[in-house]
Amino acid sequence: MTSSGKKSEFSTALEREKTRVDERLEKLLDEFARGPSVVEEAVRYMVLDAGKRLRPVLCLWTHDAMGGVDGDASLDAGCAIECLHTYSLVHDDLPCMDDDDLRRGRPSCHKKFGEAVAVLTGDALLTLCFEIMASIPQRWGVGEGAALECVGVVARSAGTSGLIGGQVLDVASVRTEGGVELVERIHSMKTAALIAASMECGAVMAGAGEEERERVRRAGEWAGRAFQIIDDVLDVESDGATLGKTPGKDERDGKLTYPSVVGVAASRAEAATLIARADEVFRSRTSAELLRGLLAFMVERRR
Amino acid sequence: MTSSGKKSEFSTALEREKTRVDERLEKLLDEFARGPSVVEEAVRYMVLDAGKRLRPVLCLWTHDAMGGVDGDASLDAGCAIECLHTYSLVHDDLPCMDDDDLRRGRPSCHKKFGEAVAVLTGDALLTLCFEIMASIPQRWGVGEGAALECVGVVARSAGTSGLIGGQVLDVASVRTEGGVELVERIHSMKTAALIAASMECGAVMAGAGEEERERVRRAGEWAGRAFQIIDDVLDVESDGATLGKTPGKDERDGKLTYPSVVGVAASRAEAATLIARADEVFRSRTSAELLRGLLAFMVERRR
Repeated sequence: MTSSGKKSEFSTALEREKTRVDERLEKLLDEFARGPSVVEEAVRYMVLDAGKRLRPVLCLWTHDAMGGVDGDASLDAGCAIECLHTYSLVHDDLPCMDDDDLRRGRPSCHKKFGEAVAVLTGDALLTLCFEIMASIPQRWGVGEGAALECVGVVARSAGTSGLIGGQVLDVASVRTEGGVELVERIHSMKTAALIAASMECGAVMAGAGEEERERVRRAGEWAGRAFQIIDDVLDVESDGATLGKTPGKDERDGKLTYPSVVGVAASRAEAATLIARADEVFRSRTSAELLRGLLAFMVERRR
Repeated sequence: MTSSGKKSEFSTALEREKTRVDERLEKLLDEFARGPSVVEEAVRYMVLDAGKRLRPVLCLWTHDAMGGVDGDASLDAGCAIECLHTYSLVHDDLPCMDDDDLRRGRPSCHKKFGEAVAVLTGDALLTLCFEIMASIPQRWGVGEGAALECVGVVARSAGTSGLIGGQVLDVASVRTEGGVELVERIHSMKTAALIAASMECGAVMAGAGEEERERVRRAGEWAGRAFQIIDDVLDVESDGATLGKTPGKDERDGKLTYPSVVGVAASRAEAATLIARADEVFRSRTSAELLRGLLAFMVERRR
C-alpha cells in the first residue's frame, strides 16, 4: 500500500474509533448523569460533541497493541479518563485561573452556566471518572484488581505531582523567565502525566505485567511531552481557521512555552525525537500498527 | 456503671479515636502530599488540626460494629473520606458559592491562599481520596474488591445525586420558599449521602454482605439527616462561644433549613426519631456499643 493509502486508512480507523468513544460517552452519561440538574446539563455540554478523544483512543489502542481482549473495559476506562480530562479544562478556564471565554470554539463552561455551576461541573466530572472506573468489573467482567489499578494510576496522574501540580507551576510561571527544564517539568505534569496514564490503563486492562506497564508509561510520558510541544508550536505557527481557536494566545498570556525558550525548529526536532523513542517501545509488536500511527499523528497534526 | 460514667467513657474513646485519625491523616499526607507546592501546603492547612473527624470515626466504628478485623484498612478508608469531605468545604466556601471567609474559626482556604489555589486544593483533596482508597489493598492486604467497592460507594455519594447535587439545590434554594420535602432532599444529598457512605465503607471493609450493607447504608442516611437537622438547630439556638462559629448565619444567608420550615421543637423531635431508627439497626450487636454512642452523640451535641 502507498503511504497516502496507509494514511487514509489510519484516518478512517481514527474517525471510527472516535465515533465509538462518542457513542459510549453518551451512553455512560445517560447512565451516570441522568438527573435534571443544571450541572448534569453542563456535564453533557462539556463532554459530548467535543474534543479529539485522544486519551480514550490511546487507552484503547494501547490495550490492543498489548494484545488485550477486554476492549469494552478499556473503552470505559478511556471514557472515564476523558471525563477527568474535561474536568481539568473546565477548572483551568475559570476566571481565577486562565480566564478563558472560549473552549473548542464554544463558550467555556463558566461563560455559559456561571462560575458556581462551572466549579461544580468540574467536580462532578472528576468524581464521575472514578464512579465509571469502579463500575467496570461488574459491567465487563474484568478483574477488580485491574480496575483498582486504573483508579490508582489515574488518581496519581491527576494529583499534585501530575495535572494539579502542573497547573500550579503553569499559573506561577506566567510572565517569568524560565529555562527549558521548567517548561519540560510543566509539560510532564500538566499534559504528559494523564496521557501516560491513558496508555498505562490500556496496558493494565490488557493484563500487562509490571515491567511492560513501566515501559508503556515511559512511552506515554514521551508522547505526552511531544504532544504538548506541538500544541505550543501550533499556537505560534498556525492560523485560526486551521487551528479552530485563536492562535498566539500563549504569548499574549505570557505563558512559558517550548518554542518561546528554544525556538520553533528545535521544538519540532525535540517532539520528533520524543515520539521516535515512544514508537520504539511498540516497534516489535505486530498488533501496534494503529497505536504507532496515532503516536505519529500526535506530532504531525495541523490542529 | 452510672450513666455519666458511661458518657465519660464514650468521650474518652471518641477523643482517642479522633487522635488516631489525626495521626493517620498526617502520615498519609506525608506520603501522598509531600511536594513543596502551595497546594500541598493548603491541603495540610485544611486537613490537619481541624474537624470533628465524624466520618472517619463512623467508618471505623461501623467496621468494628459489624465484627470486622481490618481496622487499619477502615482507618485509611475513613481518612480518604475525610479528604473528600474537606474538598467539599473548600469549594463550598468559594466566593462564587457560599462565599465564607471563616471555616472552623480560621480563614477559609481562598481567604488564606487565594481563589485559584483554593479551587486546585479542593481538586487535589478529591483526587487524593481516590488515590488513598486505591492504595489500601497493597498497604493492608485487604481484597482489591473491597477497596474498589469503597471507591464506587464514595464516588456515588459525592456525585450529582449526592454531595454535588445537594450543593446545586442548596445554592438554588437560597431565599426561596420551600417545604419540608425540599429541605429533606437537600439534607439527604448534601450531608447524609457521605455519612451513609462512611458507614457503608466500614461495613464493606468488615466483609458485610449486600443485605447488611443495605441496612447500614439506610441507617447512615437516617443518622446523616439527623446530624444536619441538629446542625440547623444549633445555628438558630446556640451562642457563638459554644458553637465555635457565628450562629444565625443560615438565616442571614437566606438558607432553607429544617427549623425554618417546621420549627425548632419539631426539628429536634424528627432528629431523635431518625437516630432511633438508625440505632435500631445495630441494637442486637454487642460490638456496636461505641457506634451507638456516636449515633446518640450526633444529636445530643452542643456544637
